Amino acid sequence: MTGHANPDWDRLLSNFNRHLGMKILEWSEGTVTVAIDIQDWMRNRTGIVHGGVTATLIDAAGGYAGNFCPHPGKRRLSSTIALTTSYVAPGKGGRIVAKAKVRGGGRTIYASTVEVHDENGTLIAIGEGSFKYFKGSETLDGVPIEG
Amino acid sequence: MTGHANPDWDRLLSNFNRHLGMKILEWSEGTVTVAIDIQDWMRNRTGIVHGGVTATLIDAAGGYAGNFCPHPGKRRLSSTIALTTSYVAPGKGGRIVAKAKVRGGGRTIYASTVEVHDENGTLIAIGEGSFKYFKGSETLDGVPIEG
Amino acid sequence: MTGHANPDWDRLLSNFNRHLGMKILEWSEGTVTVAIDIQDWMRNRTGIVHGGVTATLIDAAGGYAGNFCPHPGKRRLSSTIALTTSYVAPGKGGRIVAKAKVRGGGRTIYASTVEVHDENGTLIAIGEGSFKYFKGSETLDGVPIEG
Amino acid sequence: MTGHANPDWDRLLSNFNRHLGMKILEWSEGTVTVAIDIQDWMRNRTGIVHGGVTATLIDAAGGYAGNFCPHPGKRRLSSTIALTTSYVAPGKGGRIVAKAKVRGGGRTIYASTVEVHDENGTLIAIGEGSFKYFKGSETLDGVPIEG
Repeated sequence: MTGHANPDWDRLLSNFNRHLGMKILEWSEGTVTVAIDIQDWMRNRTGIVHGGVTATLIDAAGGYAGNFCPHPGKRRLSSTIALTTSYVAPGKGGRIVAKAKVRGGGRTIYASTVEVHDENGTLIAIGEGSFKYFKGSETLDGVPIEG
Repeated sequence: MTGHANPDWDRLLSNFNRHLGMKILEWSEGTVTVAIDIQDWMRNRTGIVHGGVTATLIDAAGGYAGNFCPHPGKRRLSSTIALTTSYVAPGKGGRIVAKAKVRGGGRTIYASTVEVHDENGTLIAIGEGSFKYFKGSETLDGVPIEG
Repeated sequence: MTGHANPDWDRLLSNFNRHLGMKILEWSEGTVTVAIDIQDWMRNRTGIVHGGVTATLIDAAGGYAGNFCPHPGKRRLSSTIALTTSYVAPGKGGRIVAKAKVRGGGRTIYASTVEVHDENGTLIAIGEGSFKYFKGSETLDGVPIEG
Repeated sequence: MTGHANPDWDRLLSNFNRHLGMKILEWSEGTVTVAIDIQDWMRNRTGIVHGGVTATLIDAAGGYAGNFCPHPGKRRLSSTIALTTSYVAPGKGGRIVAKAKVRGGGRTIYASTVEVHDENGTLIAIGEGSFKYFKGSETLDGVPIEG
């Protein structure tokens, strides 16, 4: 259940992340890889990926990194406390990919770092996030997926 | 030319900001007010505004705050160097509004702070951004609007 | 007990903040004013206040803003989850002053914004912090001051 | 000249960094390792390293990472635009060590990420910084060391 893309994961995306076409490519405890296939409405007129798309991807990936749940029909949930993004190069091409890793934390709060590369393999942004588990989501056990 | 919503301002929005239905409500040198009318696809299943929408609004407002140009047919452009967001309350209701202010900087770089309130008047997020002017955009003179 | 400098407050400073000569000038629920009188070893060779001194002041003020306790012999404690600083102007002159305000949060976590001015009244840095209360420090009741 | 601790590097430390006993252990283009041997006045009463010391180390290391100059008698200088720190574990023991790496940027601005471990090898903090070169410091050529 760890590892490469699992169709069940798509159910876990929030509306906005699904609207952006986000895809969870790999997921295991403490780490995740998430991609967005860039549509024209996510680019500025010179073709560069919009910074808000990148920030949204960093937010999602940083959170998911601490939210892996191996049990079918269950999930873990957290909310973002604080998020930072440094934009280091313009994002070009068709797909941007974020790799996120949990870097530490305690029982209820965790911190992740995220790196986003574009289709050419250029690092376009780095981010740091702090997240808080919902009650019951602190362990791999997770909570039932509703709805 | 300073002041309340100007139809010309809509032309200045990037594709992604327009896709989100962003509206510049007030704009003058060093300050701006920008709103998004929240659609269902911008909410999670409990109705809360997605953090990526809020981060995108903070990025846009923080940048626009330093980009006011009073000359018809002209604009100013900058890119985001770094962006931070602290989420302080869940965003509810139909519209979120960001007020941003330039707080300092020099000839080529400026910093803004941004506050986002939801429709109930609750402060939902605060942010800080650093931005870099494109060549020619450092002054109120601005550059011609292309396209 | 709210209000202007109280000699008891000096007991509450950590070793490092006391080493920097930090002074709490005003303190009440949700807000604080903290100063450092700049010594030569806190400046670089051109006389500018070191960014680490400013970041330390932002960290302290942001935390204290949520830590006011009106009861003699008691205090409140929190730890920093995440901290951001944007440097907007060089700090000159003899004293830097931070004003911090709690901007939101829940039962265990709070967020503050901080502004730092130098002796000339120039805004030199702005910051945002997220903090977590120690057990027992969530309310004005506070916990006994040890040692 | 790349590589392990060079006595000339001590001359380059600002007053405040020298006051904290900062030591540059390794330095080459785009990366640096910097340590502080923790004194009692840098700890709180429970022995934990003060967050302001850690933030100062992150600021310094993040900046130095982009400032390596191989030419004796020369240096490179930059100033911090924005700095973030996430505290992920309490810092214990006698020495904290920061490793910083330049992650991207252009001709005049660069971004670094920094990781700080304590003496037990525990990751205690991560940080992100944006920095701006002083005129003349954009390349390895550097500028003469004054004073």
